[in-house]
Amino acid sequence: MKFIQIKKVVVIVLLLLINTSIFSQKKVEQWQRFEISLTNKINGNSFNNVKLSAKFFNKDTSFVVNGFYDGNNIFKIRFMPQEIGKWNYIVKSNIPEFNNKKGEFECIKATANNHGIVKVSDTYYFKYADGKQYYPFGTTAYAWLHMGNELQEETLQSLKKSGFNKVRMCVFPKDYNLVKEEPVIYPFEIKNIEINANGDKIFTWDFEKFNPAFFQHLEKRIDDLAALGIEADLILFHPYDKGRWGFDSMPTEVNIKYLNYITARLASFKNVWWSLANEWDYLTAKTVKDWDVLIETVAKNDPYNHLCSIHGATATYYNYLKPAFSHVSVQDEAPVQNPYSVATLRNIYKKPIVLDEVGYEGNLDSRWGRYSPEQMTHLIWNGVIGGGYVTHGETYMFKGATDTIFWADGGSFKGSSWKRIAFLRNIIEKAPAPLYMADISRDYKTASAGKGYYLIYLGKDIKESWLFNLPKKNGDGEKLKEGCKFKVEIIDTWDMTITDYPLTFETKAVDNYRFYDKNIKEVRLPLKPYIALRITQID
Amino acid sequence: MKFIQIKKVVVIVLLLLINTSIFSQKKVEQWQRFEISLTNKINGNSFNNVKLSAKFFNKDTSFVVNGFYDGNNIFKIRFMPQEIGKWNYIVKSNIPEFNNKKGEFECIKATANNHGIVKVSDTYYFKYADGKQYYPFGTTAYAWLHMGNELQEETLQSLKKSGFNKVRMCVFPKDYNLVKEEPVIYPFEIKNIEINANGDKIFTWDFEKFNPAFFQHLEKRIDDLAALGIEADLILFHPYDKGRWGFDSMPTEVNIKYLNYITARLASFKNVWWSLANEWDYLTAKTVKDWDVLIETVAKNDPYNHLCSIHGATATYYNYLKPAFSHVSVQDEAPVQNPYSVATLRNIYKKPIVLDEVGYEGNLDSRWGRYSPEQMTHLIWNGVIGGGYVTHGETYMFKGATDTIFWADGGSFKGSSWKRIAFLRNIIEKAPAPLYMADISRDYKTASAGKGYYLIYLGKDIKESWLFNLPKKNGDGEKLKEGCKFKVEIIDTWDMTITDYPLTFETKAVDNYRFYDKNIKEVRLPLKPYIALRITQID
Repeated sequence: MKFIQIKKVVVIVLLLLINTSIFSQKKVEQWQRFEISLTNKINGNSFNNVKLSAKFFNKDTSFVVNGFYDGNNIFKIRFMPQEIGKWNYIVKSNIPEFNNKKGEFECIKATANNHGIVKVSDTYYFKYADGKQYYPFGTTAYAWLHMGNELQEETLQSLKKSGFNKVRMCVFPKDYNLVKEEPVIYPFEIKNIEINANGDKIFTWDFEKFNPAFFQHLEKRIDDLAALGIEADLILFHPYDKGRWGFDSMPTEVNIKYLNYITARLASFKNVWWSLANEWDYLTAKTVKDWDVLIETVAKNDPYNHLCSIHGATATYYNYLKPAFSHVSVQDEAPVQNPYSVATLRNIYKKPIVLDEVGYEGNLDSRWGRYSPEQMTHLIWNGVIGGGYVTHGETYMFKGATDTIFWADGGSFKGSSWKRIAFLRNIIEKAPAPLYMADISRDYKTASAGKGYYLIYLGKDIKESWLFNLPKKNGDGEKLKEGCKFKVEIIDTWDMTITDYPLTFETKAVDNYRFYDKNIKEVRLPLKPYIALRITQID
Repeated sequence: MKFIQIKKVVVIVLLLLINTSIFSQKKVEQWQRFEISLTNKINGNSFNNVKLSAKFFNKDTSFVVNGFYDGNNIFKIRFMPQEIGKWNYIVKSNIPEFNNKKGEFECIKATANNHGIVKVSDTYYFKYADGKQYYPFGTTAYAWLHMGNELQEETLQSLKKSGFNKVRMCVFPKDYNLVKEEPVIYPFEIKNIEINANGDKIFTWDFEKFNPAFFQHLEKRIDDLAALGIEADLILFHPYDKGRWGFDSMPTEVNIKYLNYITARLASFKNVWWSLANEWDYLTAKTVKDWDVLIETVAKNDPYNHLCSIHGATATYYNYLKPAFSHVSVQDEAPVQNPYSVATLRNIYKKPIVLDEVGYEGNLDSRWGRYSPEQMTHLIWNGVIGGGYVTHGETYMFKGATDTIFWADGGSFKGSSWKRIAFLRNIIEKAPAPLYMADISRDYKTASAGKGYYLIYLGKDIKESWLFNLPKKNGDGEKLKEGCKFKVEIIDTWDMTITDYPLTFETKAVDNYRFYDKNIKEVRLPLKPYIALRITQID
């Protein structure tokens, strides 16, 4: 009863606003959204017939952002201010009532957990806009958005207790052996539903009309992720449709209209990354030329240059040198077999390397879905030592086809690598700087985070001892010298322990390339695989 | 006395030809050179003041090729005909006596050992123009051209008895710890030589005047290589100069003039590859933009599109996606550690992958020059199994600084990997087709040359037995089936033996990805490293 009364008040307020004034906040944190809401009854199709944008400007700079129709005669323009201080705006529209509307607001300093949009930093790495380093430790939940609400909430709870700070997720629903659920809402308005001989629903879409409720739901979930400090690596197209809904083979003009619409809605969301596609090469209706157009459409529409990439099937490399791509997002099991191959990708692309979907911890028959948790963890360590990032995924199916596989539906984690990844993330975030291979193409185990910090990963080797040895070279930085003292910690990447080694070590050159301890001291190791060594200078 | 008489006759003939007629052959084999020689005394600098080209045409096609000044009032235009039959030409020049000269010749079918120019074939491979597959097994003799004549002849003899069919060699002389010899001739005319306080010669060049004798010598050596079936991977610029001659830091217009001149002289040589540089990134006087201009200059001047690439220092990758590059020529030790990394480079670039200068068999202090022969051989096998090509080099120094290191000076091979490479070449050339990894990014040992042919390399593993097993996938080709019978040969890549294994094997699927023998039979192996298996279908 109380709820109904409040709703009435809102309706009255909204009615007052129609055609007269702009409904908006007056103060917005950096990298949060300022939203202009405009109401007007338009003849015909409001998605097609209204041109709407606004120029936002402060004393230094200006942005032009596109608006969009949000249903119920409401049009919106969203802006993500980055600089604090006063911002003005002026609306431009073919609707006279909207055109030349002006306003202002104040952008205030971000509060504690708001670090802003993630951008590329120092060629190979990522930073939040406030300067905090961001290391992607992602997982995959392709179709979690399209599951029932309860499962979506469970997914958020699972993510909250995990160490993941990125989720790959699809805009469009997914049809696959392991994901057959029919969504509740769809991105387009339904023209017609027929039931075919098999009892399957055959949809006819009105591609001229988006379904605002669908996008509002997507936005809510992206904001839910933001509240957990998680980036949404949003997959704009994917091939897991195969005629069921037809979103994988829409006409080019619909694809472009869709990208215009979704970028107008979402570009102001600080935690969105554009992933043009998952397995783009399986979307056989689109050529590379088509993709190039779609990529440029997103780039053109996004005034903030969100992180942007495209992802192919196994070992399919797009031309990631294209300036529109901020980073490499590749599916390839090969380079994560060894840190040096990840480093080679860095050398080739000179961009951050994110190895998304390199296979998953699980128990499926498919080989990509049956890695042991040790193997999943190992591959992620390899990637990190090579100076890249590897995405986790989980594909356990214990209860048959009705089970919720996190990788597809979200839900709860059933595996054990996810905990080790949180452990690894903690180590990486405590390092003084991002990792790179200290002696590129020569030393295949030793990563450095700058002067006096090394992380050496011994992988599957089971060794009794490790002869203390470090390369002279340390990336492009200062070379190691004699007489430097180091402590060593033994990291058990599987048991998640970090143990101080009781000795200290002092560097002495053995040749022009490597240093040992001056007394050739060794580190005794547990006779176990997946051991890493954290080596830090103490003088 | 007899010689002098003949010389006189030649002079008389040449005098007769001046200003009047064209001296040329009437019949030329495909991919050999047709040469027009024109004589005229020109006022001023004949290199700069004469514009000279010719259009060659047959019934189907035409080529415009540039001429060049060859000294002694002689101008030349060279053409490499590719199609048999009658060719006509017409000369174009700002010298009235040359302009509009016409002529014709007949291009006749190539004879046995002339297979023509090497081109890229089927994305990742090379073929001679006559359709014969070409697999590069190269070595390096950077400055052999600049050594004494006796050493040059020794180099040719060494190459003749080796299995090498490509040599990386520099146009300009090399100044390096291990190569200090002063050349006899230089590419430019000397304006002045001073001797400085250290007794070093300080040259001042007339960059307006090439030294034709230098280029004639270069051409002779390229033809000598052609006679041995060896491609000249000609390095047009390199950084090993450091002010001694200054060829690494000539002004841009001289660089371009030099490229115009050398391409006019050499584009008609069927066995020339253009390597824009060795370690381009160490040529600090040139930016990437400068290189782009130089690359385009070569591409524009070469009507035959010879193979063309550029080579950087360790792990430096140019943008090899550029259309002007036919193939990747990269210096990187990392990808040759494992076949899958070579395959990854194929996947990224979609061009042939040539790993030039990944370190050398030798005994130097420098780590790049002290691989064991086993390691050199191993890296070359890794490259070949990954579907690429790895260049050999040899850096033994037994007699101190006066020793001739093949990699620098040429001379004689002192190592032992070169014989193993000839053995490998023989295996590869007997395969039905070029190799690729059968199950990309999943199986890291098994190469295939198409249906019914596999080459599996076990690398450093010492194993008692190998369980017969093959992937279902075979690149983009037909998948392996059950019930196929195979024989196995054990290849000892070091001892250079190939031994028939007495059993035959019949495929039976174990899952959706792999086949074993139907009775799970194994192959007993010698307990040695560097074993490969050749597996061929017998039914």
